[in-house]
Amino acid sequence: MTRFASLDELRASCLDLPSGDEKAAASVAAREGMLTKPPKSLGRLEDAVAWLASWQGASPPQLDNVEIVVFAGNHGVTAQGVSAYPAEVTAQMVANFASGGAAINQLARACGAELRVAALDLDTPTADFTKAPAMDEAEFLEAVAAGHDALSPDADLVVLGEMGIGNTTAAAAIAAALFGGGGARFAGRGTGVDEDGLKRKRSAIDAGLERHRATLHDPLRVAAALGGRELAAILGATLAARHARIPVLIDGFVSTAAVAPLTKLRADALDHALAGHLSAEAGHRLLLQELGLHPLLDLNMRLGEGSGAAVAVLVLRAALACHTGMATFAEAHVSGKDA
Amino acid sequence: MTRFASLDELRASCLDLPSGDEKAAASVAAREGMLTKPPKSLGRLEDAVAWLASWQGASPPQLDNVEIVVFAGNHGVTAQGVSAYPAEVTAQMVANFASGGAAINQLARACGAELRVAALDLDTPTADFTKAPAMDEAEFLEAVAAGHDALSPDADLVVLGEMGIGNTTAAAAIAAALFGGGGARFAGRGTGVDEDGLKRKRSAIDAGLERHRATLHDPLRVAAALGGRELAAILGATLAARHARIPVLIDGFVSTAAVAPLTKLRADALDHALAGHLSAEAGHRLLLQELGLHPLLDLNMRLGEGSGAAVAVLVLRAALACHTGMATFAEAHVSGKDA
Repeated sequence: MTRFASLDELRASCLDLPSGDEKAAASVAAREGMLTKPPKSLGRLEDAVAWLASWQGASPPQLDNVEIVVFAGNHGVTAQGVSAYPAEVTAQMVANFASGGAAINQLARACGAELRVAALDLDTPTADFTKAPAMDEAEFLEAVAAGHDALSPDADLVVLGEMGIGNTTAAAAIAAALFGGGGARFAGRGTGVDEDGLKRKRSAIDAGLERHRATLHDPLRVAAALGGRELAAILGATLAARHARIPVLIDGFVSTAAVAPLTKLRADALDHALAGHLSAEAGHRLLLQELGLHPLLDLNMRLGEGSGAAVAVLVLRAALACHTGMATFAEAHVSGKDA
Repeated sequence: MTRFASLDELRASCLDLPSGDEKAAASVAAREGMLTKPPKSLGRLEDAVAWLASWQGASPPQLDNVEIVVFAGNHGVTAQGVSAYPAEVTAQMVANFASGGAAINQLARACGAELRVAALDLDTPTADFTKAPAMDEAEFLEAVAAGHDALSPDADLVVLGEMGIGNTTAAAAIAAALFGGGGARFAGRGTGVDEDGLKRKRSAIDAGLERHRATLHDPLRVAAALGGRELAAILGATLAARHARIPVLIDGFVSTAAVAPLTKLRADALDHALAGHLSAEAGHRLLLQELGLHPLLDLNMRLGEGSGAAVAVLVLRAALACHTGMATFAEAHVSGKDA
């Protein structure tokens, strides 16, 4: 088991990151230029294959072992009336994942991925961040470590999803702490809170930002004070994937907020991650812009669970199928561009 | 074999269209509301399943038989130097389709579709539309009929693709004829023509619009005078699909221009069609806006062949998998929204 003995030890791991393999990416691009199509006419499909190659360090890359890991956690801030659903739904949905009834079960099968679910201390919600740090340092590091250990070392690609009633409030608080703007800027309706609930959500975020103001200069302390166990686990898993050179597809607003602190420690911390989709959750577009991420899909989804990124896996499979299966101009005896 | 004896007979078929099955769509929406997710949180995936149900007249809809038909044609307007590739590439790519080396071969396999290719009189290019109508009435009706007959009556969904050197020029000319603006508005770089080639393309379109000005009030004559056989076939196949209640995924700029004349005859003519993707070809965004179509994907693709729509098939499969496979709140014992 990974153990980070302190925030400083975790921080050191966040700062010492490997780079991608530019040769593998260049090899993909060279082959793409020989395939029977106008140059770059497969657009983002071509870019995606080069990106996979860069992080897998292999040309062609492969997608034999795609993993989806969904982390679940409970949130004390639900006491502030920030969600349209009761907190027990988190555990109920974990049971639904186990019995195969959730959206992510269907999407994992559809995209040929292995699905695993990690429920993180559901019986012990994080503290209400309007009153105390959501997690103390030990709790935070334990959740980060749980995420860090959740990946198979031989995964070719990983999707990190989340389930946690109240977690769009935590996500919006993290985003506001890192990028400014307060509760009004990143809070949205989450699972469908009404107008009064949205006001409570904004107020809770502002109260949390005020309470923890002294620690907001430290991105990891932001994640501990305002986040949640499933968000910390996604941060840990994304970090572990970088060190293991496993490309990551980021899901929606909560997942993006979970990994955002990494970019405040190192601007290139998410180069091994691609935004799978743009969520309909209000703050996601803004957060992606802050991070300079360009989502593959925009399907008005806002479910979490890794669902949007799972659909994006299908796009990557299509991209790889073209890259490996197409004939070159020479093989197919097709004339190139006019001189 | 379908035979339209005259443009008027074809026009009559374009005007007498069946409607979708609102009950089937409502049945899908009702089930979506019971599934273990916040209402409408799967966004366009939910809408897509309802749309499939509406046109198949079945709830749930199915995607057992998905067909991709690629039509190929040659264009006399290539004499004007409008393409980056020589005209013989059309036939070479048809051979590439036959031997399985093109992008659409890989994408058809990836999305579980049957691929068929119909080469339409490649040895007899259409006339150069700057000098004469691309097709006379008989040639046009024959190409429409070829498309009309290309569908299997038991298809659950069809993607219509095209291959034809020079056909983005034909498509831009049709779009300009229907929606105004001349050669400058819809002409783009196609397969990658240079700046001089783009100027020649715009000039050719303007010359065609001028030469055929007297007939541009008639959308079907626009398609005959400025289009091409593969575009006419896509129009015919889209019309046949409507009458057979088969939903259609539209591909890129050329395919969209091919079916645009139908909407000038009846505003709801494309209700059974969904725009699979937004192409990077310059005129596509504008043309989709004119048609009120909202593409599912935006992946910077610009290949044609049905490639963008084939990737969109994967999204529909994911959507249907969720719809049919997910548990309801009651089945999974998950609490609903707080009252």
